[in-house]
Amino acid sequence: METLTSHNITVMFLSLGVLLFVARVLGELAQRFNQPAVVGELIAGVLLGPTILGRLAPGLNEFLFPLQGLNFISLETIATLAIVLFLLVAGMEVDLSTMWKQGKVGCKVGITSIVIPFFIALAAALVIPEALGRHLDADPLIFALFLAIAISISALPVIAKTLMDMNLYRSDLGMVVISAAIFNDLIGWIIFAVVLGLIGNSIGNSNHIMLTITLTLAFAGTMLTLGRWLIHKVMPFVQAYTRWPGGELSFALILGLLGASFTEWIGIHAIFGAFIVGVAVGDSSHLREQSRVIIDKFISFIFAPVFFASIGLKVNFLTHFDFPLVLTILSISCACKLAGGFIGARWGGMPHREAWAIGFAMNSRGAMEIILGMIALETGIIHEQLFVALVIMAIVTSLMSGPSMRLILRTETKRRLRNILSPKLFLLGMKATSRREAIHEMTEMVCDDMEGLDAQTVEATVWVREEALSTGIGNGVALPHARINGLRESMVVVGLSETGIDFDAPDGKLAKVIFLVLTPTEDPSAQLEIASEIAKLFRDPRMSDRILHTKKFTDFLALIRAGI
Amino acid sequence: METLTSHNITVMFLSLGVLLFVARVLGELAQRFNQPAVVGELIAGVLLGPTILGRLAPGLNEFLFPLQGLNFISLETIATLAIVLFLLVAGMEVDLSTMWKQGKVGCKVGITSIVIPFFIALAAALVIPEALGRHLDADPLIFALFLAIAISISALPVIAKTLMDMNLYRSDLGMVVISAAIFNDLIGWIIFAVVLGLIGNSIGNSNHIMLTITLTLAFAGTMLTLGRWLIHKVMPFVQAYTRWPGGELSFALILGLLGASFTEWIGIHAIFGAFIVGVAVGDSSHLREQSRVIIDKFISFIFAPVFFASIGLKVNFLTHFDFPLVLTILSISCACKLAGGFIGARWGGMPHREAWAIGFAMNSRGAMEIILGMIALETGIIHEQLFVALVIMAIVTSLMSGPSMRLILRTETKRRLRNILSPKLFLLGMKATSRREAIHEMTEMVCDDMEGLDAQTVEATVWVREEALSTGIGNGVALPHARINGLRESMVVVGLSETGIDFDAPDGKLAKVIFLVLTPTEDPSAQLEIASEIAKLFRDPRMSDRILHTKKFTDFLALIRAGI
Repeated sequence: METLTSHNITVMFLSLGVLLFVARVLGELAQRFNQPAVVGELIAGVLLGPTILGRLAPGLNEFLFPLQGLNFISLETIATLAIVLFLLVAGMEVDLSTMWKQGKVGCKVGITSIVIPFFIALAAALVIPEALGRHLDADPLIFALFLAIAISISALPVIAKTLMDMNLYRSDLGMVVISAAIFNDLIGWIIFAVVLGLIGNSIGNSNHIMLTITLTLAFAGTMLTLGRWLIHKVMPFVQAYTRWPGGELSFALILGLLGASFTEWIGIHAIFGAFIVGVAVGDSSHLREQSRVIIDKFISFIFAPVFFASIGLKVNFLTHFDFPLVLTILSISCACKLAGGFIGARWGGMPHREAWAIGFAMNSRGAMEIILGMIALETGIIHEQLFVALVIMAIVTSLMSGPSMRLILRTETKRRLRNILSPKLFLLGMKATSRREAIHEMTEMVCDDMEGLDAQTVEATVWVREEALSTGIGNGVALPHARINGLRESMVVVGLSETGIDFDAPDGKLAKVIFLVLTPTEDPSAQLEIASEIAKLFRDPRMSDRILHTKKFTDFLALIRAGI
Repeated sequence: METLTSHNITVMFLSLGVLLFVARVLGELAQRFNQPAVVGELIAGVLLGPTILGRLAPGLNEFLFPLQGLNFISLETIATLAIVLFLLVAGMEVDLSTMWKQGKVGCKVGITSIVIPFFIALAAALVIPEALGRHLDADPLIFALFLAIAISISALPVIAKTLMDMNLYRSDLGMVVISAAIFNDLIGWIIFAVVLGLIGNSIGNSNHIMLTITLTLAFAGTMLTLGRWLIHKVMPFVQAYTRWPGGELSFALILGLLGASFTEWIGIHAIFGAFIVGVAVGDSSHLREQSRVIIDKFISFIFAPVFFASIGLKVNFLTHFDFPLVLTILSISCACKLAGGFIGARWGGMPHREAWAIGFAMNSRGAMEIILGMIALETGIIHEQLFVALVIMAIVTSLMSGPSMRLILRTETKRRLRNILSPKLFLLGMKATSRREAIHEMTEMVCDDMEGLDAQTVEATVWVREEALSTGIGNGVALPHARINGLRESMVVVGLSETGIDFDAPDGKLAKVIFLVLTPTEDPSAQLEIASEIAKLFRDPRMSDRILHTKKFTDFLALIRAGI
């Protein structure tokens, strides 16, 4: 009986630990530059796989990530489980009701942004297949269908994240984009499932193909109607008669696993079942926020990085890099998808500028493209060169969507307090005993740090505002603030006072944590955004005491970001 | 290149889904009878494994859970990952500061309850090894050492759960038991690691053995001092500079995986490293509650059931059931451990009765014993008969600890609202418009349901209490209540009133959700417990409106258990 040896187990945990570590570090770095984490996670795999580590230290690469033997099977198992769980979460993010609510415009954008790229790419792939990297032994129709889907899908998670960063998620434009992306995702995956059905059975006869396609459509149709209704009905029983939140967690995961098994069995990929189950489960209003958070965070931060990094372990991205192909794929993809989104938005009556923004939003492919490409590679529809080109296209389109939208709409990224705070503007043990002195002490600090700011003007502006209406907001916090002419970006000074300073708060408490908020006059909404974030943070009355006990800027920042 | 086929993937997700489903259902059932979930999870494996399914439908058993081939490796991978993650969580539950705080008595119980069973069992295993099920080819000393540990460890999670159920967790007795159990766990696992070191190297020379033992002790010592300190110092950086809560989650898991790999590499089991890392990480006061919850819930409700069920897949519990051996192991284990706990508690100055309760608490072996046994079986220290005996001993000792403690201390299980509520006592659309009428309507209902209750007496008693001080607690909730002579157990009637009834609440709101709480006069604390649970549930002002919208008892119970 062949089983895992002690050596296998050692390597398994070591490789998993290293993979997760590098993937998470690079994922965090990517986010630091306002880019999707998946970019960093992919690069982690490229670094640890044949592309880099395999070249620099082939022995270590072979030891950690062998391409055969029991450890290969173990890592394959974990990566397969990871991708199925990730698609379950991705499905849970799909909110069908948003799609209905947005109605017409979203629907129009949804249709054009998948139909236009789909048919252009299909035609191109049938006419010039070699230029688009078709395998000589790949079936021309299957190849063309796959490429058409690959070029026409969107990446819901990346799009949602970009919109949230720009504070547009709840806007009309945001909702149009999201509902169109949901539509794209659903349709795209269903067509892909059908294509997979064609392949799985390409050796069989046409009866088999029809059966697979029928089963696929029946599964999707049943799960999104009857299944969704049934899940919604059963959920309260699970909550009422099982341990909380364990019952609900298991319920979602068991359904996801069984759905995955079913779709794999009928001849399409396991991830499709998990995705559809995710949509059905996530759509129930009975599903509690806590369960969502547990499933989402554990899977997104542990399983997803492992999967995306594992992709880089299998393919050499340097030897399979084909520049003309990359360029062709990238330009066709961008052109079709930009046009699709723009035309749909104009058709729906959106202004010119918004329509372009929608085009760029829909253009990002993110994780979904990479998963699609991986499966196509594994099932032999495409070869490594095209896979690498698709991955690069996915990354580039995702990277460009945020900045282009910002440029077109002339909006700023949402100001988050944590990005503004700086150790240089952190004042421990304030000496001031009055409002006036406190404001003086803090303006001195900021004007020392920042050239071109005149301390006296700043202090006077803040004081005028403070005298008009005092800025103690209660729970031991005060928020003196002012809009400053010529300031390039918002600045926040944090001062901690052991004794407390009277900022005339409604609850009568002395202010022990004082934020001096200076924002540019040119950016009128910055002040409110920062102030409301601070007010939210200090809803818990214990917060200001905890902060008072911090001795270092890092501890302070940890409290601000992670809460108590 | 051998890799997972579509068939493998289908079977993998199907078997995982089925295993998790059966394990969770039986785990929930076990809890319904106030027993640890692990009992049900184990039985799930016995049902799906060779013992039952393998006998009834060998083909299906072979198909779902083969004992060789790629699917066997896949399931082994997932089970190994599961057990390592479970031990990480078990380690995180170990609170070293509790151990210090409880000081003397906990320490005394901790020492006697491991030393006494250890040496008695060691002596027995050396003198009558055959009666205790020693393999003929097992090393006598290693076997004796293992059995001594197996008999002397405790099961921290089971003990903690039992104490919580009995409302004793924060009592002096509870803290003594918990600190002693932590002590037992730590020492037990370290000795076990040393024994594993002996085995792993039994083929090598004595230098190797010393090296393994030295490395083991050095690892445990370093992690629990320097490592613990370092983790505590690094945690705020992780919180301050990574996404929340992803950074913290990954941090804990990456350390756990690397720890597991390290201990597997030095020749002891991977779980040991994960456990010690868990202790070090969990001990940091910087680790936030939310991260704990995400890690704990996902692993306890998803991975742990898969692992415990997978145990039953490998062993036939019927053919390897050896009654005399089971009886011998069970009686020696209980006798030694009861004596150990009792003697320590008396030595620490606890009264007779409490000392026996402590003995029974320490006696439960739960999951830890089973994990220990599994590893011993896999490394060939013991054979299947003894493994089955140890599992049965673990289950029996866990099952008996709660009831015996209740009997000895004459305490009741904590009354949880959810166990008292009944669909028969759920009143939708109340007709009453005043307090008096509401109380009348609700007492009628309970007295119809319950024979021997006199409606008039009950109503009068409740009304007297209500007149003395009205029971509207605000947020749309009222809590009329009374202690009733001769009532066998607490009863709660729930009434929903669309229009609302004036119960003179401090916030002036009409009561829309009314709980009539009747408790036995003989059980004076029941009333307060139930009332405080209700008050806590309705802290969120949206709760009563949500409840008013429920149309069925199940939906109501789901809200009570899962929150909004």
